[in-house]
Amino acid sequence: MFSVTIRDHLMIAHSLRGEVFGPAQRLHGATYVVDATFRRETLDADGIVVDIGRAGEVLRAVLGELGYRNLDDEAEFAEMNTTTEALARVIADRLADRFRGEGLDGLVVTLHESHVAWASYERPL
Amino acid sequence: MFSVTIRDHLMIAHSLRGEVFGPAQRLHGATYVVDATFRRETLDADGIVVDIGRAGEVLRAVLGELGYRNLDDEAEFAEMNTTTEALARVIADRLADRFRGEGLDGLVVTLHESHVAWASYERPL
Amino acid sequence: MFSVTIRDHLMIAHSLRGEVFGPAQRLHGATYVVDATFRRETLDADGIVVDIGRAGEVLRAVLGELGYRNLDDEAEFAEMNTTTEALARVIADRLADRFRGEGLDGLVVTLHESHVAWASYERPL
Amino acid sequence: MFSVTIRDHLMIAHSLRGEVFGPAQRLHGATYVVDATFRRETLDADGIVVDIGRAGEVLRAVLGELGYRNLDDEAEFAEMNTTTEALARVIADRLADRFRGEGLDGLVVTLHESHVAWASYERPL
Amino acid sequence: MFSVTIRDHLMIAHSLRGEVFGPAQRLHGATYVVDATFRRETLDADGIVVDIGRAGEVLRAVLGELGYRNLDDEAEFAEMNTTTEALARVIADRLADRFRGEGLDGLVVTLHESHVAWASYERPL
Amino acid sequence: MFSVTIRDHLMIAHSLRGEVFGPAQRLHGATYVVDATFRRETLDADGIVVDIGRAGEVLRAVLGELGYRNLDDEAEFAEMNTTTEALARVIADRLADRFRGEGLDGLVVTLHESHVAWASYERPL
Repeated sequence: MFSVTIRDHLMIAHSLRGEVFGPAQRLHGATYVVDATFRRETLDADGIVVDIGRAGEVLRAVLGELGYRNLDDEAEFAEMNTTTEALARVIADRLADRFRGEGLDGLVVTLHESHVAWASYERPL
Repeated sequence: MFSVTIRDHLMIAHSLRGEVFGPAQRLHGATYVVDATFRRETLDADGIVVDIGRAGEVLRAVLGELGYRNLDDEAEFAEMNTTTEALARVIADRLADRFRGEGLDGLVVTLHESHVAWASYERPL
Repeated sequence: MFSVTIRDHLMIAHSLRGEVFGPAQRLHGATYVVDATFRRETLDADGIVVDIGRAGEVLRAVLGELGYRNLDDEAEFAEMNTTTEALARVIADRLADRFRGEGLDGLVVTLHESHVAWASYERPL
Repeated sequence: MFSVTIRDHLMIAHSLRGEVFGPAQRLHGATYVVDATFRRETLDADGIVVDIGRAGEVLRAVLGELGYRNLDDEAEFAEMNTTTEALARVIADRLADRFRGEGLDGLVVTLHESHVAWASYERPL
Repeated sequence: MFSVTIRDHLMIAHSLRGEVFGPAQRLHGATYVVDATFRRETLDADGIVVDIGRAGEVLRAVLGELGYRNLDDEAEFAEMNTTTEALARVIADRLADRFRGEGLDGLVVTLHESHVAWASYERPL
Repeated sequence: MFSVTIRDHLMIAHSLRGEVFGPAQRLHGATYVVDATFRRETLDADGIVVDIGRAGEVLRAVLGELGYRNLDDEAEFAEMNTTTEALARVIADRLADRFRGEGLDGLVVTLHESHVAWASYERPL
C-alpha cells in the first residue's frame, strides 16, 4: 500500500460542551496542524498516489471553510462538539467528497492540537 | 476509526543482555518520549475517544512506576531485556488494564529513544 | 553562557485589529507552543541554570492566567493587539517578575503558532 | 504487533516526466529523510524486532546505492518516474530482499521530502 | 528584541567543487527547509515585527528564483560553491534588499538540509 | 555570521546530588540529542564553515567518550553534577580543543533531554 501525506494548518475559536472538558468549556481556540494522508494500492500512470499540487489546493480550500472562524457560530456545528477527533472526521469526509472516483483507497486526517496531543480519523474511499 | 494520541516521557537507567547489544550491554540510560494512542470505532456522547485529561494522568502514573529508576534493579524485569520494544508492550499492557470496559478498540504505544530510533507495540483492547 | 529551555503550551481565542491581519481580524484562536529559555553566565552550586521543576510550575502558572480564554474579553489587553510577538513579551515579562534576584542574566520566550510561524521576545533580567 | 523504526537520509538529483509535475519536470533535487519500519508479531529471544545496529548498516547501504546521484542517469530508473512514492517502494523492496527469512512480518518505508510532504510504501515480508 | 520566523522550503540540484565534499562532488540535490527570521527592537503600530502574509510571499518569491533548478547551470553561481551556508547568505541578502527601510534590525536565514544538519547566516539590516 | 549545526545523540546513566533534583537523585538515565553549532564570520575557500564530515566524526568521538556509560562511575565527574547544562559545557569544551586554530569564532552545544526540555552552552573559540 502506498500513501502520500501533506501538511497544512487551521486556526479557530470554539468552546466545548460537557464537564469532561474542564476549562475548555470556556471560549478559547486552537491551531490544528493538519496532516492529510491519501492511500492507494497501486500508483497511477505518472507514478503517483495523487497530484500533490492539486491535493494541497483542495486541502487548503477545505481548511479555508473552517479557518479564522469561531466554530460556535457556525450553523453546521450547532449539534456537535467540535473536538479534535470530530473535526478530523469533518475534514476527512470533505476531502473524500472531492477525491471520489480517482482510484484512492483510503484517507487519514490527523489534527495536531499541540506538541503533546493529536487525533486522527481514518476511512476508506 | 478514530484515534487520540498523547505524549509524555520517561527517563531510566538499564543494561541489556546479549552480544547483539554491543556497548549497550554496559549500564547506561535513555529518555523515552512516549506516545500513547487510543483507538475507537465511534466517538462517545461527548464527541471524544477518551477523556484526554484523565488519559494524561493515567499515562503519567504508569510512567511514574518506571521512571527515574535503574530497571536492572526492578524485580519485575529480572527475566527480560528491557528493550524499547519490550517496554512499549509493558506500558501498553498497563494502560490496557486501566482502560478496559470503556469502549476503546485498541492501543498503540510508541517509545522514541532518540531522534533516529523508535519502537511501537499495538494491541486490541 | 548557559541556557535552559522548557516547553509548554497555551490555547486561546482572540481577534486582531488592523487591515494587515486580513481574515485574522475575525474571532479565531491559536495553540501557542511556548518555549521559555533561561540564561545564566555561570551555573549555581547545584550545577544548574534554574530549578527546572520550579521553572515548569511558574511557566504553567503564567500560561494558566492566559489559557482557555478569549483574550478579546480580558481588560489587560484592551489597548493592544494580542499578536504572537506581543504575547511573547507579556509572558517573558511575567516570568522576569517571578525570577528576579536569582542570578539569571536573561530570558527568551518563543511562541510557535503553527509548524510554519513563530515569534520570540528576548530580554535581560 | 511490534515495530522498530530507524531514520536516515538520502540526497539526490532527478527530474519528473509528466505535466502534472509542473516545475518539477526540470532537473532539481531532494533530501529524503527516510524512516524504515520493521514489523514482527513476537519479539525474538533477545527481546527485539531486529538488530538495530545491523538494520542501520543495511539501510545505509541501500541508501548509499542511490544517494549523491542524479537518478536521471541511472539505468535502473530509465522506465519509471522516481517519485517519492516510487522511491519508497524501491527502498522497501531492497530492504525486504536483505531481511527475508529472519522472522519479520512486514516493512514500511517513509520518505519525507520536506516539512510538509511525505510518502510511504508498506508491504508484508 | 522581538523576532518573527516563517518556514518554507526549496528543492534544487547541484554539485560541490573540492575534495572536502567527497561524494557530494557528484551531481545530487537537496531539499532545504528554510527558516527566515526577522528582528526588530520594538513592535510597529499594529503590534508586529513584519506583516507575516507579505513576508511569506516575499520569501516564496525569493525561493522561487532558486527552486526546481540545477544550480550548476545558473550563471550567478558560476564562481561559488552553492553550499548550505552560502545559500543561506544569498537568501538573507535578497530578503534584506526587499525589506530595507521598514524598521527591521536584522535577519537570520537557516537552511535545514536534513534532520541532522543545518546552516545559518545572520546579518543586520 | 555563519553557522553550521550537526545533530547526534548520546545515552547515559547517572544520578544527581541535591534536593532540588527530587526523584532524579536516584540512578536513572537520559538520551541527549546533541546539536553542535560551529560559528564563523566568513566562509573558508571552499565556501564552508567547517568540513561537516570531519565535524561529524569528531562529535561522534567526543560523544563516544561519554556514551553507554554510568557517569557516576567516571572519575572525571566525581566532583560535579552531570546536569544537562554541565554536560553541554563538557562537550563544547572538548570540541573547542579539537577545532582550535581553524578559523572558527564560536561554538554552541545544545543537549535535548526530552521533547520538553533542553540546555545549551555557548562559548567563543
